[in-house]
Amino acid sequence: MNNFYLIHTCRDSKDRAGELQTPHGLVPTPVFLPVGSQATVKTLTPGELKDIGVTMVLANTYHLYLRPGISVVEKMGGLHQFMAWDGPILTDSGGYQIFSLARLCRINDDGVIFRSHIDGSEHFITPELIIQFQETLGADIIMVLDECPAYDDSFERVQVAMRRTHRWAERCQRAQQRSDQSLYAIVQGGVVPQLRRQSAEYLTSLGFPGYAIGGLSLGEPKRVTLAMIEETVALLPEDKPRYLMGIGSPEDIIEGVASGCDIFDSVLPTRVARNGAFFTWQGRHNIRNAAYSQLEQPIVSNCDCYACRTFSVAYLHHLFSCEELLGYRLLTIHNLSFINNLMRKIRGAILSGTFSSFRDKFLASYQPTDERVRLDQKQKWLKSRSLSP
Amino acid sequence: MNNFYLIHTCRDSKDRAGELQTPHGLVPTPVFLPVGSQATVKTLTPGELKDIGVTMVLANTYHLYLRPGISVVEKMGGLHQFMAWDGPILTDSGGYQIFSLARLCRINDDGVIFRSHIDGSEHFITPELIIQFQETLGADIIMVLDECPAYDDSFERVQVAMRRTHRWAERCQRAQQRSDQSLYAIVQGGVVPQLRRQSAEYLTSLGFPGYAIGGLSLGEPKRVTLAMIEETVALLPEDKPRYLMGIGSPEDIIEGVASGCDIFDSVLPTRVARNGAFFTWQGRHNIRNAAYSQLEQPIVSNCDCYACRTFSVAYLHHLFSCEELLGYRLLTIHNLSFINNLMRKIRGAILSGTFSSFRDKFLASYQPTDERVRLDQKQKWLKSRSLSP
Repeated sequence: MNNFYLIHTCRDSKDRAGELQTPHGLVPTPVFLPVGSQATVKTLTPGELKDIGVTMVLANTYHLYLRPGISVVEKMGGLHQFMAWDGPILTDSGGYQIFSLARLCRINDDGVIFRSHIDGSEHFITPELIIQFQETLGADIIMVLDECPAYDDSFERVQVAMRRTHRWAERCQRAQQRSDQSLYAIVQGGVVPQLRRQSAEYLTSLGFPGYAIGGLSLGEPKRVTLAMIEETVALLPEDKPRYLMGIGSPEDIIEGVASGCDIFDSVLPTRVARNGAFFTWQGRHNIRNAAYSQLEQPIVSNCDCYACRTFSVAYLHHLFSCEELLGYRLLTIHNLSFINNLMRKIRGAILSGTFSSFRDKFLASYQPTDERVRLDQKQKWLKSRSLSP
Repeated sequence: MNNFYLIHTCRDSKDRAGELQTPHGLVPTPVFLPVGSQATVKTLTPGELKDIGVTMVLANTYHLYLRPGISVVEKMGGLHQFMAWDGPILTDSGGYQIFSLARLCRINDDGVIFRSHIDGSEHFITPELIIQFQETLGADIIMVLDECPAYDDSFERVQVAMRRTHRWAERCQRAQQRSDQSLYAIVQGGVVPQLRRQSAEYLTSLGFPGYAIGGLSLGEPKRVTLAMIEETVALLPEDKPRYLMGIGSPEDIIEGVASGCDIFDSVLPTRVARNGAFFTWQGRHNIRNAAYSQLEQPIVSNCDCYACRTFSVAYLHHLFSCEELLGYRLLTIHNLSFINNLMRKIRGAILSGTFSSFRDKFLASYQPTDERVRLDQKQKWLKSRSLSP
């Protein structure tokens, strides 16, 4: 079991700073976890993650189960040794991936039968198996198997998924054998406030060491996302870490912190980097823009990341024009550094009791991503869901 | 002008060890230059090249002229600063690329009109322009513009190309204004011994600080390649560096050293890495081989490269199964380290007078690449040539 200590909370606001103690080291919160689904944060080495200041990474049980297989990771000495990352790891159960990437065949209370998105092979997964897999992988934080509905599913369908998620959470809890891993529950309930509250209350009654908020930012308007986070957080225990799953744009992290969340993860900073997008304190920009072809300065002048310390905007623009892999690496380093610096600033502001003004100042200068772009990015997910209730 | 000192030669053999002094540092020879055509050795940072022990890199005038343009590199402070590599650089003139990648439109004594392989735009290049470009880029060693025939061209066509290469070499020599760059001539003459000898003698009479052997390993049988190298080297001055262009497999480097060559370059070690191939002292292997999926050891157990120090064969196999970019990086690091270690061993053997037995021992254990594979790799080049004489 990991320990979580709240270092700073405030009567007038919900933002909070804490410390998560894990078998592989201490993680100051709020924290952002870069995503390494396949036991690699895309394009980077573990050493580069350390240089950036990353404290914990996320890997995915669904992906590792399919490739290279749980037994291969076990034979290599577990996930930490396999990917040569000696810091804390959180493994997601893969619930979301089974419901988005894979082709679902059948779901009932026993478990899920799905076909691999890689080779179409059929697999049967249960809550007990998912725990067994995650105990073998050996992450510091592991997640229950959940059923993730789409945001526009009917009330009944969302309710069925939520209830199943609850029963599965109990089975995961009973199946857990290792005491050095923290098992987090996942609150579901779609965009229905009543169900979100039910889910938070029920799972809290089971007594988990941490709670995740799942099934959000899947295409619903941002104000709905925020409302659901608030409904949920209000019913979660104060002294346990709250993990807002799959959310990782600068503006969304800020709002998540303001709502009282502690842990964040998303492919966004690394994925958009490979598409040529980089963060500055003014917003998100694309390095392929012709205006960048002759700029001598770094992409962010006071940024201490390797890319900004070493190369001009013009060089990065050139690398992307030529589709050179080094470009993908350098923008990935920059974006993760940016998010990491953002988390440091957020934590400093919380500790000094100035988070609210930090948030206002940030949001005044940062141009958030267009809502339509955000929705476009989720279309694939929505399209990929095909199971009937 | 750079200085070249021979440190060890032998009466009974042609292998030699030397030192090349350049404005950006000292280069022990024999040396292999990793190729960074577009001002980046694919997938790697300058820091990683230093860690591997790389002393000099190659960049390409043709590629940089098209993207980002010579004037952009100039504005960024020259090629060294643009790519953040403070060690020695050799720029190839791009002669080979104009005759292989680009679509030729017209060639006469004035120069070449060609269409870009990127956007089809038309360009006119002369020997004088190529020198001007390379003086602006600012490499330590620069190359004359040459005309590169195919290995199966007629005697007449090869002769015409050779004579034009000679006239262009003279013009390049006259056009050179910077005294801190060494301009190397390129011996042509196809696979005709008589023309190779003529070319070596003529260019030697012009007095260059270094001589390259161009137009080889383009599809001709390996024994022909070796014969041409021997014909040429025999007539080149003893005290000037000899650069065997575009040759970089372990077995070919060994033979090149045995023939008295000092400088080598090739995309081979980096390109095959991105295709999943890695070098060991037994030969070339492919990481995608299913036999590697559960191997715990590094790919070469006594290798000191970052990939071998840090990861199992199984992890590298996994990265390639998932097409993860980190895999391309790690095999690139390994292959360049392997070649760099090979060059160090070669030099050590030369200095201790044991190169001949080192060569025998290496070739006895190393399984060279199948000649047919080698020829296949050159088919594209042959197909791409379409100019009538």
